[in-house]
Amino acid sequence: MRSKAITAAPEIEALISLLAKVPGLGPRSARRAALQLLKRKDQLMAPLAAALAVAAEKVRACSNCGALDTQDPCMLCAAIDRDDGLICVVAEVGDVWALERAGAFKGRYHVLGGTLSALDGVRPDDLRIAKLLERASGPDVREVILALSATVDGQTTAHYLAERLQPLSVTVSRLSHGVPVGGELDLLDDGTLFAALQSRRPS
Amino acid sequence: MRSKAITAAPEIEALISLLAKVPGLGPRSARRAALQLLKRKDQLMAPLAAALAVAAEKVRACSNCGALDTQDPCMLCAAIDRDDGLICVVAEVGDVWALERAGAFKGRYHVLGGTLSALDGVRPDDLRIAKLLERASGPDVREVILALSATVDGQTTAHYLAERLQPLSVTVSRLSHGVPVGGELDLLDDGTLFAALQSRRPS
Repeated sequence: MRSKAITAAPEIEALISLLAKVPGLGPRSARRAALQLLKRKDQLMAPLAAALAVAAEKVRACSNCGALDTQDPCMLCAAIDRDDGLICVVAEVGDVWALERAGAFKGRYHVLGGTLSALDGVRPDDLRIAKLLERASGPDVREVILALSATVDGQTTAHYLAERLQPLSVTVSRLSHGVPVGGELDLLDDGTLFAALQSRRPS
Repeated sequence: MRSKAITAAPEIEALISLLAKVPGLGPRSARRAALQLLKRKDQLMAPLAAALAVAAEKVRACSNCGALDTQDPCMLCAAIDRDDGLICVVAEVGDVWALERAGAFKGRYHVLGGTLSALDGVRPDDLRIAKLLERASGPDVREVILALSATVDGQTTAHYLAERLQPLSVTVSRLSHGVPVGGELDLLDDGTLFAALQSRRPS
């Protein structure tokens, strides 16, 4: 006998409850997703199962920078055409992808694995800070760019890292604040407007 | 060499592009989902891969009612404690699940696999209508309930089915329209209010 809450086969219920844990999907959209997947078994469901299994098996965090790749050191650390003198520090792997998509940076990355957070109990030892200090002490490194979010936790982390990096002979810099490209002035918050005015440039 | 658009390992890119096709996820949320999955490999990613593979292999459409299950005939068609005299016609498998969750119906189901749609080119032959007529001709069947959406396509389909079922010796009924339970009057559209007034009951 199935309990009343179970309305489909256990295999489908198991799939729905796992899909519901995927960020971006909730219980309702997980059900809809499961149905569509079952409708498109060969085009979508089986390939997705295989892609998940392959990625789960092969993808590892790079032991140098912390980014995700199937090789260690990762493609970005192994690339010979990138500047060893620059280390761009980010909170998460997704930030590396965003910067790479922008194509604005040709140095090396360092992924902290999060930001310091009193609320969530994230302490310096929980982040890849020791490895950053080790890398930043290398003879080739000229500058460490703290590319952290303009949130309280992000800026707390940037401040902490700047202090830890200070004894080393590297320049420490941060991303500039200002009006997002394409952003409309009257929709911006006061903090951003203030920052954009403060760091105004001659046009 | 990787092209500029590729910012992560091909295995990760493949996963992201498949996740982006899952209903409810888009390109951006697929990236976020992939990252979270890679972070929670053992708790979420590997089990999800396995659940997808199992469901893709085992789940089939019931040859009688069209619902999805790992057995054929499905659990609902095979259940001995349901009323064979009632057939509830729905458009999609998700509708069966919704009605089962509500626990309001103890008869049999029939899944059409969609609704008639001039716009999307869905014709009667594309739906499981022949099988419905066959089932509705059975000696035990007293009533066919058309539980289709109150949309143009849903009501067109209901109208078409009512005509096709008319020669048979079964009662054909539809779901009532009215105020959704918990719905606020001033947020309802005119059509619903009109229908709720038309089919008012003595209190």
